[in-house]
Amino acid sequence: MPTSRSIATTIILAASLLSAHADEGMWTFDNFPAEAVEKAYGFRPDQRWLDHLRLSSLRIAEGCSAAFVSPRGLVQTNHHCARACIQQLSTSAKNLIADGFYAREASDEVRCPDIELNQLIDIRDVTDRISKATAGKDGEAFSKALNAERAVIARECSGNDDNVRCDVVALYNGGTYNLYKYRRYQDVRLVFAPEQAIASFGGDPDNFEFPRYYLDLAFLRVYRGGNPLDSSANYLRYAAADAKVGDLTFSSGHPWASNRLETVADLEVQRDVSMARLIFFQAELRGVLTEFSARGVEEARIAADSLDELENYLKGNKGRFSALADTSIIRDRAAAELALRAKIDADPALRAQYGEVWDNIRRLRERFRGTWNRAAYAAGLGFKSELFGFAKTLVRYAAEASKPDEARLRDYTEAAFPSLRQSLLSTAPVYPQLEKLTLSFALTKLREVLGPDDPFVRKVLGRKSPAEVAADLIDGTGLASVELRRRLLEGGQKEIEASSDPMIVLLRAIDPDLRAVQKDFDENIWTPLTKNLALLAQAKFKVYGTSTYPDATTTLRISYGAVAGYQKNGKPVEPMTTIDGLFGRATGSSPFKLPASWIAARPLLNPQQPVNFVTTNDGVGGNSGSPVVNRSGEVVGLWFDNNWEGLGGRFGYDGSVNRSIAVNVGFIREALTKVYRAERLVRELAN
Amino acid sequence: MPTSRSIATTIILAASLLSAHADEGMWTFDNFPAEAVEKAYGFRPDQRWLDHLRLSSLRIAEGCSAAFVSPRGLVQTNHHCARACIQQLSTSAKNLIADGFYAREASDEVRCPDIELNQLIDIRDVTDRISKATAGKDGEAFSKALNAERAVIARECSGNDDNVRCDVVALYNGGTYNLYKYRRYQDVRLVFAPEQAIASFGGDPDNFEFPRYYLDLAFLRVYRGGNPLDSSANYLRYAAADAKVGDLTFSSGHPWASNRLETVADLEVQRDVSMARLIFFQAELRGVLTEFSARGVEEARIAADSLDELENYLKGNKGRFSALADTSIIRDRAAAELALRAKIDADPALRAQYGEVWDNIRRLRERFRGTWNRAAYAAGLGFKSELFGFAKTLVRYAAEASKPDEARLRDYTEAAFPSLRQSLLSTAPVYPQLEKLTLSFALTKLREVLGPDDPFVRKVLGRKSPAEVAADLIDGTGLASVELRRRLLEGGQKEIEASSDPMIVLLRAIDPDLRAVQKDFDENIWTPLTKNLALLAQAKFKVYGTSTYPDATTTLRISYGAVAGYQKNGKPVEPMTTIDGLFGRATGSSPFKLPASWIAARPLLNPQQPVNFVTTNDGVGGNSGSPVVNRSGEVVGLWFDNNWEGLGGRFGYDGSVNRSIAVNVGFIREALTKVYRAERLVRELAN
Repeated sequence: MPTSRSIATTIILAASLLSAHADEGMWTFDNFPAEAVEKAYGFRPDQRWLDHLRLSSLRIAEGCSAAFVSPRGLVQTNHHCARACIQQLSTSAKNLIADGFYAREASDEVRCPDIELNQLIDIRDVTDRISKATAGKDGEAFSKALNAERAVIARECSGNDDNVRCDVVALYNGGTYNLYKYRRYQDVRLVFAPEQAIASFGGDPDNFEFPRYYLDLAFLRVYRGGNPLDSSANYLRYAAADAKVGDLTFSSGHPWASNRLETVADLEVQRDVSMARLIFFQAELRGVLTEFSARGVEEARIAADSLDELENYLKGNKGRFSALADTSIIRDRAAAELALRAKIDADPALRAQYGEVWDNIRRLRERFRGTWNRAAYAAGLGFKSELFGFAKTLVRYAAEASKPDEARLRDYTEAAFPSLRQSLLSTAPVYPQLEKLTLSFALTKLREVLGPDDPFVRKVLGRKSPAEVAADLIDGTGLASVELRRRLLEGGQKEIEASSDPMIVLLRAIDPDLRAVQKDFDENIWTPLTKNLALLAQAKFKVYGTSTYPDATTTLRISYGAVAGYQKNGKPVEPMTTIDGLFGRATGSSPFKLPASWIAARPLLNPQQPVNFVTTNDGVGGNSGSPVVNRSGEVVGLWFDNNWEGLGGRFGYDGSVNRSIAVNVGFIREALTKVYRAERLVRELAN
Repeated sequence: MPTSRSIATTIILAASLLSAHADEGMWTFDNFPAEAVEKAYGFRPDQRWLDHLRLSSLRIAEGCSAAFVSPRGLVQTNHHCARACIQQLSTSAKNLIADGFYAREASDEVRCPDIELNQLIDIRDVTDRISKATAGKDGEAFSKALNAERAVIARECSGNDDNVRCDVVALYNGGTYNLYKYRRYQDVRLVFAPEQAIASFGGDPDNFEFPRYYLDLAFLRVYRGGNPLDSSANYLRYAAADAKVGDLTFSSGHPWASNRLETVADLEVQRDVSMARLIFFQAELRGVLTEFSARGVEEARIAADSLDELENYLKGNKGRFSALADTSIIRDRAAAELALRAKIDADPALRAQYGEVWDNIRRLRERFRGTWNRAAYAAGLGFKSELFGFAKTLVRYAAEASKPDEARLRDYTEAAFPSLRQSLLSTAPVYPQLEKLTLSFALTKLREVLGPDDPFVRKVLGRKSPAEVAADLIDGTGLASVELRRRLLEGGQKEIEASSDPMIVLLRAIDPDLRAVQKDFDENIWTPLTKNLALLAQAKFKVYGTSTYPDATTTLRISYGAVAGYQKNGKPVEPMTTIDGLFGRATGSSPFKLPASWIAARPLLNPQQPVNFVTTNDGVGGNSGSPVVNRSGEVVGLWFDNNWEGLGGRFGYDGSVNRSIAVNVGFIREALTKVYRAERLVRELAN
């Protein structure tokens, strides 16, 4: 917070803060700053180069990135991105998380119950259509018009082809709308995954840190019609050599979310509310799951995926909270804001158009603060259970399916149906014991944040305790059965209304409440907020005229940078780790315990082989699994993380310390050849 | 955060913010604002009235308040203040937490292993002596001189009498030093405790909330020479009737800590660091302990006290975090600060003396931010274990005892020895399973916040996991034995050096590190910080000239106010709850499940009897157990909590919503008479 003395200084500083940092940016493929790259690195990717990288890149629909790396549909991603599949294919007899998996023969490749891959085949600007449809509208009318036009555009685009997925994407907070057309792949099989102990060697303590030694790798394969997909037109070859310090690198993936265009009020609310309260929830749940896992091997196995995912989010949120609480990000943003407001206020025309934006946003954010608990808990925090999720989707789908497509909730349009169906009919196992644990926990927190006297809480709990309600629901529901879910999905509203399944009964009772919360939030907070943020983006553009990239939105982006170390606490951090360092760090105790396969293979391994490396490439969560390529477009690495400082990348990019972390291609090759003797894979990757 | 537009407005507002609110203040007994009370309420307590209340009030050394309520040493406090004793006296066969306790005969009263009570018998100003001793000194020299003079004064005061305890107390952040002389009582026995289910009916969901229905009550008795203490000179009689709305009330107790004189930089660091990071730790530990308790009845019993205490701290911290994050407290403080700085800057003499204070504090707070993890974890967070605590005390005591008294660490002076000895030789049970759980957890967090490569972390863990280290220590140590602790305590340095007990061995190895962290923190952050805060207090006094109360410091304070409801979310909250309401709220499911004794007694109870009431009395944690008295000095209630809004009382008092919550005296009488048929007690209270 600037004091009176520092305001003058900070205004002067502000100008410099607004100029783009070198290597900054998660760029859309249709607006890549080729000139800047050429200026900085002497290489200018042409359209063909960009198209090839785009078409070789993949999105995992659940929220990760990946890429084709062979002509026969082989896909490279992170172990932590394929983790749910690996766990779902495990049984109490065969723990693929602990032991790893390798399909020695093609016929050993096993289908993942839930994974959908998307390949971006076209981008089109549809801003005009959306603007026309929403012109002069506000609040509910605006939302309705926006959703309706989105559904129409998406349906026109996909033409009811289940193999095509079309999303209308808001960029620059709705300053622009683009239509993203994807090819959709739902038959995805597991080919290879190393043991968790090497995939995330160092575990949670080392997560989001560097130096690092993760083999955070999995291979999948896309099938079509029972055979491996022919991906020969678009795949990325493995480079023969690792990248070296200073080398130019590109990464292509789907960063989830960034908040770089937001105001001080937005960031303060993130710190005080969204981040802090989420951490409170997640930290306690982590304690519950950790202690549950300590009960025995089977408990550890069934909770492993939830716990791992949770720990990853939790540590990420702690890093982001720390970026907002402990660094100068908010102070810098305040300085930049003062400078911009001064310019806007100095020009009557600009002032009339944009002068109120910041106060509007602050007011909306205060409202956001007040309704966050209800909105976040209604949206999911309060009901952590797969079976609850099935019931909610089924009840909503039945209700929405009877409406015209363009009047439906966004996640229930025809275009969304294939993914929705896949997740509902997934054969992934559901663990009742774990379900009761997390649902009971979530209901307890729901009561904690809304209070035991809240009418919605009373509606959910009645006179029972959260544990009793969770036990009754999970023991009573039949929704663990795929067949029942199929029947309810296909039977429509009639079947849903006739159901006496307690989870369906609960959802019938409370879905109107959940919808009302969501509607209020969307119309009275989210829509006006994004409108004001879009105005802000416009205002910045008018004042500074700089071309920039939109905040991340889970859509495909490309970033560039170079292999480079950084300084931490006044000491240099080298940009690469080695196999020698990996063995030096192993203690024999989890999470610093190497798998037997690695101990056995040690004599064969090249101790100087680089393991992980850092680059200045801009990227945030969701980039996990992104290919990192050299100027020839060849894979030199596999993006899997940011460093701790890089978690602040959600809010701003600081090239001096923000780093992307990747697995070296040479390390992958060394592991496949010498540790796993995965000749079939090695040969395929040499294509 | 004030924007440029609002600065002018906020400066104007600031003046009003600095004037004292009605009923505000946790006053020392030697500076009570009798005039203000008279003006507001038409009653002026005289010196005798004040002395009687002071001498009837007690401090529980572990951090609670209490009072004599009969001529025979009977003491009234909260159930949650006596909880550790109640749990320590429980066994797997006899769970006093769940079932309650009542000594039907005098001979049934059982000694509490750990409770020490202190009665404040004298207050003396020793500022001059301290000032003389520390004049012209800084950093380490200042700390040494301060501690030495403190020890000399305390020793002179107690004259080596184990029944006397003398503390040199810093008030106004060291602007004043007072000598507090206490009579010390170590033979304290349990007389009565209700079932936990009514003591904290509504449990964690209702904690820090109102309306409320807690019988948060326990009776203890002080013994001397094997007989009940004669307390006939100073005890508080029970009032015949409950207080009514608008009635003047006083409360007399030991609030722990407030931060009302601090700057924006101090508050920001509390929000971002002390509060937030503590919550992260506590929330996760809560999850661990909750799930551990879910394993079975015995696990639930042994973890109950830790879990209850933790939940209480955690919810309190969440409320305080919310007060800083979600209310205008920091914004208001910033406005007040701007106004004061403007006045200081406008006067060259004031500016020379105080102009740098805020920047100094901000700089020190930034340093605090950077070292908090290390300091807090070294001070205890990183080693949550009773047995570790014993080892640390023993190793330190042996080392300190060989030094002259005035050169010792503050907690190891001769004056501190009786309490230290009592806690070391306590017969309270230690539960190895629970010890392993919490120590393993704490070590995991230690590694998380300092990183696995930190030299101190490596020294503690070696190549083992936190769980392995915890198991080795707890399984290997013999410190659960009182006899071994006595031998080590009495054997001094030689015995400690010869010990091969693994916990003692660990402490010998790491205590130098722990001391170094503490020393660095004390000398380079804490001492200069408090010096600057004392300057700030001076500056405020010079500019505004208002007489005020010092921030709370666990010393005896008196506050005044009236029974009064308040507004929440635009709706009135009535100031009293009733027995009828209690039964209406009972659902049959914990924590809203009433004990069988209450269900059975229902027909006998007066449904309109008030249960709990709120007053505008200023108070914060540590006030728990404080007697609430009317103008006749008779007990009308038993302070046990703040409301949620009142948690912000740590940082500032807002009379419109800050409330103290107390158990009505009539409810206590009703419960003792009709539910527990505790005739012996009822007769004694009628004295």
